[in-house]
Amino acid sequence: MKLFNSFNKIVLVVEYDGRRYYGFQWQANLPTIQAELERAIQKLTGESSRVMAASRTDAGVHARGQVVNFRTKSTLSPQTFVRALNYYLPKDIAAKAACRTSADFNVRRDALSREYDYCILNSSTRSPFARGFAYLVANKLNIEIMNKACQFLVGEHDFASFATSLGELKSTVRNVYEAKLTKEDGLVTFHMVANSFLPHQVRNTIGLLIRVGLGKVGLEEFHQIMEAKTLGLAGPTAPAYGLCLTKVNYPSNLGLEI
Amino acid sequence: MKLFNSFNKIVLVVEYDGRRYYGFQWQANLPTIQAELERAIQKLTGESSRVMAASRTDAGVHARGQVVNFRTKSTLSPQTFVRALNYYLPKDIAAKAACRTSADFNVRRDALSREYDYCILNSSTRSPFARGFAYLVANKLNIEIMNKACQFLVGEHDFASFATSLGELKSTVRNVYEAKLTKEDGLVTFHMVANSFLPHQVRNTIGLLIRVGLGKVGLEEFHQIMEAKTLGLAGPTAPAYGLCLTKVNYPSNLGLEI
Repeated sequence: MKLFNSFNKIVLVVEYDGRRYYGFQWQANLPTIQAELERAIQKLTGESSRVMAASRTDAGVHARGQVVNFRTKSTLSPQTFVRALNYYLPKDIAAKAACRTSADFNVRRDALSREYDYCILNSSTRSPFARGFAYLVANKLNIEIMNKACQFLVGEHDFASFATSLGELKSTVRNVYEAKLTKEDGLVTFHMVANSFLPHQVRNTIGLLIRVGLGKVGLEEFHQIMEAKTLGLAGPTAPAYGLCLTKVNYPSNLGLEI
Repeated sequence: MKLFNSFNKIVLVVEYDGRRYYGFQWQANLPTIQAELERAIQKLTGESSRVMAASRTDAGVHARGQVVNFRTKSTLSPQTFVRALNYYLPKDIAAKAACRTSADFNVRRDALSREYDYCILNSSTRSPFARGFAYLVANKLNIEIMNKACQFLVGEHDFASFATSLGELKSTVRNVYEAKLTKEDGLVTFHMVANSFLPHQVRNTIGLLIRVGLGKVGLEEFHQIMEAKTLGLAGPTAPAYGLCLTKVNYPSNLGLEI
């Protein structure tokens, strides 16, 4: 017999258009994804739940596969959570799937890897459809040479040169599982998968890769910048709006069906 | 020796996010694509040029490959027109390419065919990224049976059942070169190519196809509706915001490089 109410832990997959927001994490008096999710949960359950994200996205960054968790005493089904939260959430945030997990599961600690896309419109003219979702680079990028530079990134390395700040981080070593560029109809997508990322790592990486693609930085220099392991040496930091968190991977699929 | 100033004819390929506009065609006191293009041309050249489109799109409909023409006394290069018009055009309209053509060329009359995409998000949950660009259909669509129905459409037929109104049209016979659906990550795209289209033809066609895909209309009934050749029998008219004019084809590529 339980004397105290027990909590359920709910995991949500969330999509958002980050343009209007000051990033995922709660900030006083500023619109954030976390604040919107917590507000919607409170409207639905009456509870003040704290929402945690697998990967904290910066201001302006989008997500197609952010994963969050929160505790609740509500016994609503995960599917009902999805439908009801979408009723309360603003139009630029949507819950896509949900499941119930064990109380000790943690979306951040238990994530095996994160996947990000950085979108570039490589065109001499702007596009109404890329606006807010792709960074316009007018001069033609050499995708082949950029992909050669990407090969240096794959594996376990010290990525200090690609971080803008360290905050409380102890190590700048990360394991990059994939880094490659593809091009379709003028839209260049940089896909990067790693166990986790340093602050601004994807945006500094693509910033340097763009310089490689424009012939301003050679492969040798790219490698030297990486090997220098010096904070902020890579870059420039590409604009936030080109970045999108596409997926977070876990040991099992958590029973999520998207 | 020329006694009178001669006009140049400029052809532009134009992209637009149609959400804010009451369609392509000029309307008093309402925002339209034509009005924005004519305003930008006037700012650039000082002339009151009339802009004609290859395919007049309805309110809310998007374009990735609209083609327009206008006359000008300006001797600016086509490339300069693209760059300068993009400076004057609002962010949700962009010139993508331009060329100079002979005075008797006409983007509407000389077009061989038009290509449209209709986008459907086939998902139980809404998406911030599909908002304003894809029609949300929550129940699972049977794409295979929809593609079977599409086979009835290909060829020269009387499409009266798929038109909402006729206006000044004399014939409801059109030649459909392609009609098919593809699916990728929950996003269903209906691609339709024809010499030209009747009013609301694509939106009424996909409206009826969705009923086929949901099992509400059988293939036999689809064919009967088509054969009835009765105005407005197909449908319902799917929402405008799912529709996009993707391409207009001409006997040559007009020297356009997009």
